[in-house]
Amino acid sequence: MSRIRLGMVGGGRDAFIGAVHRIAARLDDRFELVAGCFASTAEKSKASGADLGLADDRVYGDFTEMAKREGRLKAGIEAVAIVTPNHLHFPAAREFLKRGIHVICDKPLTSTLADARKLVRASERSGAVFVLTHNYTGYPMVRQARAMVADGAVGAIRVVQVEYPQDWLTTALEDTGQKQAGWRTDPARSGAGGSTGDIGTHAFNLARFVTGLELDSLAADLQTFVPGRRVDDNAHVLLRFKDGARGMLWSSQVAPGNENGLRVRVYGAVGGLEWAQEDPNRLWFTPFGEATRVLTRAGPGASEAAARVSRIPAGHPEGYLEAFATIYTEAADAISAQRDGSSTGLALLPGVQDGLEGVAFVDACVRSSKKNGAWVSLAL
Amino acid sequence: MSRIRLGMVGGGRDAFIGAVHRIAARLDDRFELVAGCFASTAEKSKASGADLGLADDRVYGDFTEMAKREGRLKAGIEAVAIVTPNHLHFPAAREFLKRGIHVICDKPLTSTLADARKLVRASERSGAVFVLTHNYTGYPMVRQARAMVADGAVGAIRVVQVEYPQDWLTTALEDTGQKQAGWRTDPARSGAGGSTGDIGTHAFNLARFVTGLELDSLAADLQTFVPGRRVDDNAHVLLRFKDGARGMLWSSQVAPGNENGLRVRVYGAVGGLEWAQEDPNRLWFTPFGEATRVLTRAGPGASEAAARVSRIPAGHPEGYLEAFATIYTEAADAISAQRDGSSTGLALLPGVQDGLEGVAFVDACVRSSKKNGAWVSLAL
Amino acid sequence: MSRIRLGMVGGGRDAFIGAVHRIAARLDDRFELVAGCFASTAEKSKASGADLGLADDRVYGDFTEMAKREGRLKAGIEAVAIVTPNHLHFPAAREFLKRGIHVICDKPLTSTLADARKLVRASERSGAVFVLTHNYTGYPMVRQARAMVADGAVGAIRVVQVEYPQDWLTTALEDTGQKQAGWRTDPARSGAGGSTGDIGTHAFNLARFVTGLELDSLAADLQTFVPGRRVDDNAHVLLRFKDGARGMLWSSQVAPGNENGLRVRVYGAVGGLEWAQEDPNRLWFTPFGEATRVLTRAGPGASEAAARVSRIPAGHPEGYLEAFATIYTEAADAISAQRDGSSTGLALLPGVQDGLEGVAFVDACVRSSKKNGAWVSLAL
Amino acid sequence: MSRIRLGMVGGGRDAFIGAVHRIAARLDDRFELVAGCFASTAEKSKASGADLGLADDRVYGDFTEMAKREGRLKAGIEAVAIVTPNHLHFPAAREFLKRGIHVICDKPLTSTLADARKLVRASERSGAVFVLTHNYTGYPMVRQARAMVADGAVGAIRVVQVEYPQDWLTTALEDTGQKQAGWRTDPARSGAGGSTGDIGTHAFNLARFVTGLELDSLAADLQTFVPGRRVDDNAHVLLRFKDGARGMLWSSQVAPGNENGLRVRVYGAVGGLEWAQEDPNRLWFTPFGEATRVLTRAGPGASEAAARVSRIPAGHPEGYLEAFATIYTEAADAISAQRDGSSTGLALLPGVQDGLEGVAFVDACVRSSKKNGAWVSLAL
Repeated sequence: MSRIRLGMVGGGRDAFIGAVHRIAARLDDRFELVAGCFASTAEKSKASGADLGLADDRVYGDFTEMAKREGRLKAGIEAVAIVTPNHLHFPAAREFLKRGIHVICDKPLTSTLADARKLVRASERSGAVFVLTHNYTGYPMVRQARAMVADGAVGAIRVVQVEYPQDWLTTALEDTGQKQAGWRTDPARSGAGGSTGDIGTHAFNLARFVTGLELDSLAADLQTFVPGRRVDDNAHVLLRFKDGARGMLWSSQVAPGNENGLRVRVYGAVGGLEWAQEDPNRLWFTPFGEATRVLTRAGPGASEAAARVSRIPAGHPEGYLEAFATIYTEAADAISAQRDGSSTGLALLPGVQDGLEGVAFVDACVRSSKKNGAWVSLAL
Repeated sequence: MSRIRLGMVGGGRDAFIGAVHRIAARLDDRFELVAGCFASTAEKSKASGADLGLADDRVYGDFTEMAKREGRLKAGIEAVAIVTPNHLHFPAAREFLKRGIHVICDKPLTSTLADARKLVRASERSGAVFVLTHNYTGYPMVRQARAMVADGAVGAIRVVQVEYPQDWLTTALEDTGQKQAGWRTDPARSGAGGSTGDIGTHAFNLARFVTGLELDSLAADLQTFVPGRRVDDNAHVLLRFKDGARGMLWSSQVAPGNENGLRVRVYGAVGGLEWAQEDPNRLWFTPFGEATRVLTRAGPGASEAAARVSRIPAGHPEGYLEAFATIYTEAADAISAQRDGSSTGLALLPGVQDGLEGVAFVDACVRSSKKNGAWVSLAL
Repeated sequence: MSRIRLGMVGGGRDAFIGAVHRIAARLDDRFELVAGCFASTAEKSKASGADLGLADDRVYGDFTEMAKREGRLKAGIEAVAIVTPNHLHFPAAREFLKRGIHVICDKPLTSTLADARKLVRASERSGAVFVLTHNYTGYPMVRQARAMVADGAVGAIRVVQVEYPQDWLTTALEDTGQKQAGWRTDPARSGAGGSTGDIGTHAFNLARFVTGLELDSLAADLQTFVPGRRVDDNAHVLLRFKDGARGMLWSSQVAPGNENGLRVRVYGAVGGLEWAQEDPNRLWFTPFGEATRVLTRAGPGASEAAARVSRIPAGHPEGYLEAFATIYTEAADAISAQRDGSSTGLALLPGVQDGLEGVAFVDACVRSSKKNGAWVSLAL
Repeated sequence: MSRIRLGMVGGGRDAFIGAVHRIAARLDDRFELVAGCFASTAEKSKASGADLGLADDRVYGDFTEMAKREGRLKAGIEAVAIVTPNHLHFPAAREFLKRGIHVICDKPLTSTLADARKLVRASERSGAVFVLTHNYTGYPMVRQARAMVADGAVGAIRVVQVEYPQDWLTTALEDTGQKQAGWRTDPARSGAGGSTGDIGTHAFNLARFVTGLELDSLAADLQTFVPGRRVDDNAHVLLRFKDGARGMLWSSQVAPGNENGLRVRVYGAVGGLEWAQEDPNRLWFTPFGEATRVLTRAGPGASEAAARVSRIPAGHPEGYLEAFATIYTEAADAISAQRDGSSTGLALLPGVQDGLEGVAFVDACVRSSKKNGAWVSLAL
């Protein structure tokens, strides 16, 4: 199977997530990085491109130029990874979608709800594959949790507890010139949400992914604890799902002792499930009235859903990069399927609609919190 | 030191918490059980009394009669443990307080806010010692957490996460004739709160105890998931504390896989703390920017606050009964101190005021939930 | 049921284990401490007796005198707890056994193999109940592990891994005047084994108790890491059991980070089990080819064997003192049964024969190690 | 930096470790797989080569032919990964070394000690880089443990506990036709050791890597529990290191509930360290007399040694493949350095000498066990 020609927008030197995307694209050998616009000046971009061994003429200082030229090249890129700060997701994605180039975009989808809606339409018009890297959905035991819930292992869901605490913004790191903290706390580049946008969207998406429940409404109490910060750094959110299930969501960037403590717990009429990102190869399952089982990736309790996205034997931990790579590999499957005119059946890949939901989640949190925690619905 | 003569109201055959109180009273050898009214008929009460080796004439079928007679006896009881269903706490306690008999009462204080207020006044009038068995405050590492917070180990508190999930009421156990489930889901005996009253009060008290923060207001979303149940069996509560700290509280009796999962996490400007009841001998402490420390009861990181209520060496687990016994032992200290006219300095013992707060917490949860999660204050 | 009159030898001020025995005796209310010889001088002994509220004329400075007088008293003690340093176990026990007074003795049984053998004979001659406080056998999940193994849950046993690491003797604590360290590292008072005697015997007993396997032979490599210490402070032991199972046993008092890390793992042809003292309410069970189950005390996976010695609901941790109390309570049952002439059926209580085995285990470790790790059998 | 041209011997369809090597080689983008001899017939080999997208004329059915041709090609492979069953490591490696092609070889080095010695000489003669994939040494927290030990964090080492339990050979899987089980339990292909060779060598290497201690002698008790099996499936080994430290090593393939439970614990005069492969992003460190610290990969307690081989932020788990990739990446560094004539300073890469030690370890275990556990030295 020939590798898909991939370009990248963003992800130059000092960026964190760009390197992650490149490893993820490479891990299962389905993509080849051949072009990029890694920075906002041609000079910086070329330097990063050289680091990565790209041909100089495939490295651009402007993503529109890149989209135009790559769209015309005979062996131009087939797909692009967009890993810029949030506010650039929309304008960048639009250019590539316009030319039928598949898009793999970091989350949240956009920095504003208006942009998100426009991007949904741009994606629909384009017909190209659009994948949003809600990477946590690529973990094998998250896949298994979803499959088990769908199969009724926990019964009708009653309660969902989801949280994503971190501690890296406990102090005003953005004032020190740290690049990641800088744009992530800048509403112009990040959007109206701070912790809600950066990690709350992951938590919300994970709860949605595992349970399949649709949100009815939420009530949010957002806080900004670090003086001078312009976006929320902690959020307490109550959730009401459409069929009567209820939930709580906590996102925080100011909780000392937490690194990337994403965790989801689902409780239904006949069982419970628990999964934590920092211990991703285990899924804790309790059929009500029986002892808790520790299901392990590739172990005796692992299901087909987990096995399909698992690479190595049980007890050999797979981690964040493997889960991220699964998103890329399934994106490759979807792109190949489209190329072949075959159906993909890859209903599990997060897409532009999930992205819209994520941005709407942030918007709803901000609206609710401004109304002192009133219940609001997603403005989809 | 001579042992304090103790009576008990409630706690006959089939009761769970009565036996716990008796072990707790006995463990440090500061009390001697000499009288009781263990059931609502003299016959049943006498049977339980005989099981416990009490003299027949010290076993009563009516707590008022017991209070009257014991109050007159030369060597009558000095203190009484009240371990009945909630609605009897007030009438029973009142009788003993009236006669200057010290009261050790199970939580929640009463089944109604009106009763709670009356009991506060009765307690104040009496001058007797009144202890409410918020037993989790007796755990050594909870004591240490409180002391560390007070000493500034986590800095100004920003976020409090507290939860108490159980699973025993996942099905309609109350319909099977199970006694515990029966009264705990009966508003007439338990009060307006279900999970909120039975375990939410513990969670709320623990958060208050560890942080010292006072509540400004709360917003609650209560649920009753089991059809036909008359009280909440799951509660999602947002908390706002007086100095700007915020919190979330979750209590549930329908979360399969959770036995008594009380857990509190406190995050401040310079550190974080975490403690869980099911692993009570460890306290996880992270000074921001440093590695997490696992502080163990009686281990090298244990403080004076923990050592004072610790009985055995590090690595030998102390549990629920020991923590409960600490409440009794400190009650004995308080009673002895009052007898001697000395000051106790036992500011840590939960008392009638904490009890009023707990009942007000339940009342506020119910009020807020009825108003669709509006912010309400405790009606103290 | 009237309480059994108990005396104690040893356990005065500064002793650790005496207080533990007293709490254990009291917890289930089956004993009443009425006499004691708490120290080697009458004066010190009386001071400790007064602390404990004993009548002055029931407090002795000499255990022989105590045995004689209590043996003659109409309401003299029925049982005695012996909690002295090891070398006094035999002479003390002998005096009480001689007078038909039941003995509850701390482990190891004696400081020498010769004494152990004599004590076995003294016990046989006496007919009194003799209980050795291998307290870890009182943990509910240890009971369950034993029952599961006996029921074939793991199949024919192949491998036993048992360890008991501590760290309190990492430095020469005995040189600081610390009393516990003093006698426990003095061969004259402790016996030829250091870590082997103090904790290795517990580990060996636990392996024996859970598996029911008899030892064929062992090969030991003992070490004394702290300069000047006169007994082993670390021991590596290979085990061969009679039916082909093999094991490893590690005891250490010099392993920083370990408090009382007793842990046993048993692997058979069809399953595995794991239990650790510092997390005693859980038992990890893996039927080969299935997911690991977390069996909890009083939880859905708990068996009758665990329930019988369990006091409180699942999720409320029971600990070291409760397990210790179970030994006392079963001793009370055995004593009562003997009084009544009924059969006890309490095959689970560790007795004098287990004590002999423990001392023989230490002796075998020392012999093997002196022969450079040659395989030796227990000299029973 | 241009990628190193890599060939592979072994690793065709159905092989486990070949795919792992390919991902590891690709993850950091330092190698390009261009040739291979994936099976023992040209037909099968070509099929695998086609799966991997290799040019047909670079796929061979014979490794000698491959070595010869690739050695002559202008753009022939610069390095070869050898991932065959053990008995082919030597003949294959020899052919490539002879032609100055760098070798990255799976462990154990060879199936016999004689071969191992020959391979050491072949490697020395060649001057090519020789890397043995003791992949666990690539874990960041293993690197940190080694650095901390070297820096004196635990002081003079006293005790080393290392274990590698698995359960996949609990039954006679080799009789079912399972390929992995087949060759790994066949002495002709695997060598004289079963669990000792397959995983005991990893455990031994890890202990050596972390502590830096040299072995003086060992005493082994090997077992074969599954009837009909021709190699050990469980091994109990006592270790004596040259400077007085002692250890225990357990390897097992018949311990139900264990997947890849490699774990090492090191105790010295002033501290202790613990690391487990199934939770690889944490390192537990106890300075004696202080609370245990949980050091996390890329977290505040992480050192330079860990950071150098770490790719993503703390709390995002890296796993087995990343650690394996680190070995490849450092191999690339070593190869590049040799190409440039620069010194590598990569003293951490496991090489042919470690491989010889591993084979000698297996040989010593077998010899000792045959002599009933006599102490023997490595026949280096």
